[in-house]
Amino acid sequence: MIATASQTTATRDVRFKEPQIEMAHGAGGKASRRLIEGLFVPLLGGAAEPLGDAARLEIDGTPLAITTDSFVVRPLRFPGGSIGELAVNGTVNDLAVSGARAEAIVVTFVLEAGLPTDVLEGEVRAMGEAAARAGVRIVGGDTKVVEHGKADGMYITTAGVGSMLPGVVVDPRSVRSGDRILLSGCIGDHGITILLARGELDLEADLRSDTRSVLPLVETVVSAAGPGVRWMRDPTRGGVATALNELARDSGLSVHLLEGCVPVRDAVRGACELLGLDPLHIANEGQFLTVVAPELADAALEALRRTPGGEGARMLGEIREHPARAVLATTRYGGSRIVDMLVGDPLPRIC
Amino acid sequence: MIATASQTTATRDVRFKEPQIEMAHGAGGKASRRLIEGLFVPLLGGAAEPLGDAARLEIDGTPLAITTDSFVVRPLRFPGGSIGELAVNGTVNDLAVSGARAEAIVVTFVLEAGLPTDVLEGEVRAMGEAAARAGVRIVGGDTKVVEHGKADGMYITTAGVGSMLPGVVVDPRSVRSGDRILLSGCIGDHGITILLARGELDLEADLRSDTRSVLPLVETVVSAAGPGVRWMRDPTRGGVATALNELARDSGLSVHLLEGCVPVRDAVRGACELLGLDPLHIANEGQFLTVVAPELADAALEALRRTPGGEGARMLGEIREHPARAVLATTRYGGSRIVDMLVGDPLPRIC
Repeated sequence: MIATASQTTATRDVRFKEPQIEMAHGAGGKASRRLIEGLFVPLLGGAAEPLGDAARLEIDGTPLAITTDSFVVRPLRFPGGSIGELAVNGTVNDLAVSGARAEAIVVTFVLEAGLPTDVLEGEVRAMGEAAARAGVRIVGGDTKVVEHGKADGMYITTAGVGSMLPGVVVDPRSVRSGDRILLSGCIGDHGITILLARGELDLEADLRSDTRSVLPLVETVVSAAGPGVRWMRDPTRGGVATALNELARDSGLSVHLLEGCVPVRDAVRGACELLGLDPLHIANEGQFLTVVAPELADAALEALRRTPGGEGARMLGEIREHPARAVLATTRYGGSRIVDMLVGDPLPRIC
Repeated sequence: MIATASQTTATRDVRFKEPQIEMAHGAGGKASRRLIEGLFVPLLGGAAEPLGDAARLEIDGTPLAITTDSFVVRPLRFPGGSIGELAVNGTVNDLAVSGARAEAIVVTFVLEAGLPTDVLEGEVRAMGEAAARAGVRIVGGDTKVVEHGKADGMYITTAGVGSMLPGVVVDPRSVRSGDRILLSGCIGDHGITILLARGELDLEADLRSDTRSVLPLVETVVSAAGPGVRWMRDPTRGGVATALNELARDSGLSVHLLEGCVPVRDAVRGACELLGLDPLHIANEGQFLTVVAPELADAALEALRRTPGGEGARMLGEIREHPARAVLATTRYGGSRIVDMLVGDPLPRIC
């Protein structure tokens, strides 16, 4: 995620008054937002734009997007992926959902002294392969080494710069009542896979992280719905619920979900029920949400479903006027509930 | 530093065979170079270009530079600066010595749970101020939180994208015999300041880190010597000796220093003598080296000295044909010695 800035009117309301940093400040939910809006934005002087996954800028007249993320996932390897693969896909995806194609990535490693070389080599190889699959070059980097015990193996940071896809402007302020919400596939696979991979719970399931580049799917939607694409977001930390709450807030509108339409694998649903978690709060690393104008939504959904990796795409619901700045889910039984942003950090260090 | 790639002929000779990562692999000297050339470049598929401080690329026809660095300095604050200020200046400087003006910076924090908010706030404020001084915007970022004890307070990573300064091409392969070597000011201040700030040695000195943006000085040289500017580098980890050895290697030529011309404060020289260190190996965070064509070198030096912050600039020596790929220093007593790259890590975590 990138915290480019925030609406100044909103920023004025928030002050970061907590005395120390807690795990929840890195979880991507409400506490992260307080830290960003109450401390980073005022001190770094952000512009009056909503929070996005990448910042847009112009250099010598050429529009660009730039983004960065640090990765501290534990364990380093897990079914379906590893920290290195996540680090490349995460940056490719932050650019993709901002309407940009990653052109170059730079990477830094903070390594612990004593780290076996083959562990590092495995991650560098995973990054090279993920970059090749995503069609982006890794053009440079930096390595620091800290004493044993000071980096939990390794932390990886990637930053990427991208060129803008033609014909798409992603802006929550362009979202209108009646627009439809699409999702690329099943949610919660990544977060629950990481949780199970830690082996701290007596649970097993045949699950894999969904980490992948979503750029091909984003390009499909853009090509099918072009100017009808209003907004995109990859629901990583904080999950679909947090991403949609940010949309509701930044658009001033209401997000209405049909809960029965949200695709969740049985294994994810089962683990969530056992642990008292909501799949809507679980992190994903290979999915994206998009809001599309109603007259183009069916075409976008059909195009997504015909694209490899997009077969499980669904229409989740629609945008309405009321209640403003809220996410509502209509449950299977016909009732409705408010879906809040993630509060606290039930699954620390999932990316 | 950025490891964009290496000359493919050189890369073939190096394999990284060490079984585990040691502190020296992050020190910027020989061990770092083995790691980059023996592991990163082969697996990430670098192009056939020498190692530089930033990678150059083109997006939609616009030439750009991009760079990244992680900062793990300990202590977080020290006389003359702090980790946040270093993180901004380091990225501005990597771009500057690549002939680029930083246009936008993104930042990530890896924070330890339990970090006092005022420590974080101090660094965010320092970054905002350093960015304002350097004339660059911080446009976005990311925060991760790890458990107490897993990040030594905080690590900061910055990445920056820059526009190319007109009229300058920085390339070690353009260096010619007879070219002159200029340095912007006193060396070793940063490394020795950090060493003393740790309080582990029974030494005191009135020293401050030299952390600053070198962009104004780089612009001065470019404006005075334009196409005569062959190469630039900020001698951070590994110091002047390592930067010049990389130049010797990448140009295939010989670097001849007059040791008496290298500006070193008495406090730095004294600490180095006591500790058995060579000031040429000590890190700097606000200096840069440049190689300029002989007919423009005097003009470049005079322009530097007239620019605020460049009063201490010196001509250090010249480029010759032999001995190829080596750095030689003529000592005060008329003898000469080979100056090697940094080996090992006498001062860990100085940036």
